[in-house]
Amino acid sequence: MKNAIGKEIPAAIAGIDKVLPYKGLFDAMPEGRIAGKTKKMVKPGDSKLLNSIEEAVEKSGLKDGMTISFHHHFRGGDYIVNKVMDVIAAKGIKNIRICSSSLNDVHAPLVDHIKNGVVASISSSGLRGKLAEAISRGLMEIPVVIRSHGGRARAIEAGEEHIDVAFLGAPSSDDYGNANGYGKAVCGSLGYAMIDAKYADTVVILTDNLVDYPNTPVSIPQTDVDYVVLIDSIGDSSKIGGKETRFTKNPRDLLIAEYCAKVIYNSPYFKNGFSFQTGSGGASLAMSRFLRTEMEKQNIKASFSLGGITKPMVEMLKDGFIGKLFDVQSFDLIAANSIRENENHYEIDATYYANTHTKGCIANKLDVVVLSALEIDTNFNINVITGSDGVIRGASGGHSDTAAAAKLTIITAPLIRGRIPTIVDNVLNIVTPGTNIDILVTDRGVALNRNSDKYEEIKTWITKAGIKVFEIEELRDLAYKMTGVPQKIEYTDKIVGVIEYRDGTIIDVIHEIKE
Amino acid sequence: MKNAIGKEIPAAIAGIDKVLPYKGLFDAMPEGRIAGKTKKMVKPGDSKLLNSIEEAVEKSGLKDGMTISFHHHFRGGDYIVNKVMDVIAAKGIKNIRICSSSLNDVHAPLVDHIKNGVVASISSSGLRGKLAEAISRGLMEIPVVIRSHGGRARAIEAGEEHIDVAFLGAPSSDDYGNANGYGKAVCGSLGYAMIDAKYADTVVILTDNLVDYPNTPVSIPQTDVDYVVLIDSIGDSSKIGGKETRFTKNPRDLLIAEYCAKVIYNSPYFKNGFSFQTGSGGASLAMSRFLRTEMEKQNIKASFSLGGITKPMVEMLKDGFIGKLFDVQSFDLIAANSIRENENHYEIDATYYANTHTKGCIANKLDVVVLSALEIDTNFNINVITGSDGVIRGASGGHSDTAAAAKLTIITAPLIRGRIPTIVDNVLNIVTPGTNIDILVTDRGVALNRNSDKYEEIKTWITKAGIKVFEIEELRDLAYKMTGVPQKIEYTDKIVGVIEYRDGTIIDVIHEIKE
Repeated sequence: MKNAIGKEIPAAIAGIDKVLPYKGLFDAMPEGRIAGKTKKMVKPGDSKLLNSIEEAVEKSGLKDGMTISFHHHFRGGDYIVNKVMDVIAAKGIKNIRICSSSLNDVHAPLVDHIKNGVVASISSSGLRGKLAEAISRGLMEIPVVIRSHGGRARAIEAGEEHIDVAFLGAPSSDDYGNANGYGKAVCGSLGYAMIDAKYADTVVILTDNLVDYPNTPVSIPQTDVDYVVLIDSIGDSSKIGGKETRFTKNPRDLLIAEYCAKVIYNSPYFKNGFSFQTGSGGASLAMSRFLRTEMEKQNIKASFSLGGITKPMVEMLKDGFIGKLFDVQSFDLIAANSIRENENHYEIDATYYANTHTKGCIANKLDVVVLSALEIDTNFNINVITGSDGVIRGASGGHSDTAAAAKLTIITAPLIRGRIPTIVDNVLNIVTPGTNIDILVTDRGVALNRNSDKYEEIKTWITKAGIKVFEIEELRDLAYKMTGVPQKIEYTDKIVGVIEYRDGTIIDVIHEIKE
Repeated sequence: MKNAIGKEIPAAIAGIDKVLPYKGLFDAMPEGRIAGKTKKMVKPGDSKLLNSIEEAVEKSGLKDGMTISFHHHFRGGDYIVNKVMDVIAAKGIKNIRICSSSLNDVHAPLVDHIKNGVVASISSSGLRGKLAEAISRGLMEIPVVIRSHGGRARAIEAGEEHIDVAFLGAPSSDDYGNANGYGKAVCGSLGYAMIDAKYADTVVILTDNLVDYPNTPVSIPQTDVDYVVLIDSIGDSSKIGGKETRFTKNPRDLLIAEYCAKVIYNSPYFKNGFSFQTGSGGASLAMSRFLRTEMEKQNIKASFSLGGITKPMVEMLKDGFIGKLFDVQSFDLIAANSIRENENHYEIDATYYANTHTKGCIANKLDVVVLSALEIDTNFNINVITGSDGVIRGASGGHSDTAAAAKLTIITAPLIRGRIPTIVDNVLNIVTPGTNIDILVTDRGVALNRNSDKYEEIKTWITKAGIKVFEIEELRDLAYKMTGVPQKIEYTDKIVGVIEYRDGTIIDVIHEIKE
């Protein structure tokens, strides 16, 4: 059957209990009750401290077919997934489902665990590197489920993604499990992990920094934790940013940043008390600087900024340009340390951030969000999960969450990347529906979404600001002129990935690439 | 049938789904899963702001027979219960169950709501004043359920006390429900209310201080809140202490305080990094001062203190005698404001504080707790709920929670109050089992519990410290000599109250007083 965005969704998909095709932005109403973890009594005097990951796996009661979870606050610097999976493999446990908030290049060893039957299925915000490549080429029998950060929190709370055992790396913990993001290896916010801790039946904290009781601040409370294990090292703090979060000197990115800032500060949202979220890409970071200059000029202060937090945001907080920061993931060490140091920099969990099936996430209060795209099509549908070759190389992140929730959604992207057009007739895979997108900003100009319910209004103020507007087809043609029309990717019938929309419906599937 | 402490518990009690007699301190293992509230989607642009309590009652879908909840952070200064109940009564809604974290003298108007059939049943930590008097004399057909603070959190999390609508007074809130304990009427910690917010199907925030979005710190998050109502006034901050929390000049209390401090600082727990909780009674407050003097002398610093927090605790935190404070309820304005001002003063919820059916509450890590008693018997059983006349006039509070959890449990009480002995042959009602209690400190001397598993050990160090020890029977005899043997209270067969132990079993029932 075709879903509401015209994608063909099979009636049955391996690993999915109930296939619900995407119906529209807010059309899937939640039913029933939030899930609850198993009750437990830890008595006075009971110890939670275990000697090894092996012992934790044993005590957790982990068995074939269960679901385990991880967080990705260390991004490419994570040591936990591989360490834990090696122990699970050595114990002969099979058919594990991994529910990670995301997976990265560093998790390539999972390829062997999949081949050996240790890992049977995966849900994650994204996949990169060899693991992503292998999965795109048909490694797994059960498709990977790609979820947004808000969507993952929703699925866990809904009981659709039930976690049997969460293995959560924590930069510090006491012997009773009070954990936070500060220690030898700092990661700052534990926003994704907080959800796992709340809903998993069994929670194991892995730390390389066991501190005196009581450890504070309490990001993960002892009341959620079953076991604590002291290990050598949980991750490499220097990699929490990943390469995406460095400042850019790329003239093309700077151009996009400048255009984007100009769009924002000419919008009606740009006034005292406005709120915004930017990504961690080069253009986004540069955009923050341009925006800041204009805020200074016009004496405008933002009430809050949100999401993955970066150094420029922290500086704007410190310098009074932003009132409060809400941090679900710290994208660099400046941001990570700021949560502890700055009382207006708050750690939030993924439900508070962006869960649509809750009593109102903070994303709902966003005025402006700036997001990136691997591909955008002439209907403004966005692909942030697969490259132009059809291989998974991205992450859903908070993309569809904030796009749906913010008042003004801006996509920034270069017109072409190398010999690859960013604007295409049809994106290979849809993560965020075009109906959410208001404006595309490229290095060659700006396009407005005629299907946005704010189209006329935006057209008025953007024209008034003297910003030249193109039709997206014009930008596509310009791109195609430089790169040629992209070759059609050949797929097999096999589904290797399921892209779940933030509400639990299926917005798209990813097919195996035909060699 | 008789429960494990010898109290007669009927097989069926009105209003109790399943009567489970008390079995022993940690003998009731929790089963199944934590309860979850109904799922809901609040979309971007949806408003939570309502114009009146009337509108909130309507929108909440409140119907005959439902359960509503309140918190008692304003103690005698609470305006919310009466305001909300008047609206519910005016709407003609009947047979409501009230689940309040506690009720006070100020809630006497509930007597009429009970008579008129608006209120059918109540659960609360305590009852005082006219309401307590009327209930003790048979006002209600369904007995009041008395729960400890940890026990209430447990019952709510277990789904045994399902809250349909929580009406939570908040000193400040934004229009999306982010609420905390600071505003015009300050109450500090919202520790009890946080549990209601997490588990109630519908949560209404009532505030007299609507602030700009986003309100921080976030004690109650927007993701838990359905509606926000701005009202004139939510409570009187000057009454959050109640009369129990004033400093004492009473020589008898000072004597108890001095003896108690001497016991503590001669105990093996008194060393760097120890932890303690004291109550809010006059003797407890004075005790803190004596203890502080000795800490200064011996250069000892406590790692943390816990529970209801008072000015002396805050001063010890500020002056470096205590490392961290964990505050489930602020007992005075000094404490209330300190949470916001002092980064080592933490707000905690009632599960983190003292829920026994969780993965380890912080009370489990207590070295020493000092508690009070209305009556204590020669088996060291404690009554903190009924007076010597059998009338309800107290509260369970954190008594049985911390008594069970702490390593050393000390009861302080005057030998007699007026013409009433505190030490008796049998307490009228048991809230805390004697097996929990280690030491009784009175103004006439100290008695040790021979049934404590630490009896021999305590006897050794207490004797070595030169503290004279009495048998509790000697102290009882001394009391009886002064007051005479108390007259037996005449009861009817009707049960007016059920005292639930912290694990959900029934430790005692309160009978109607025969006129």
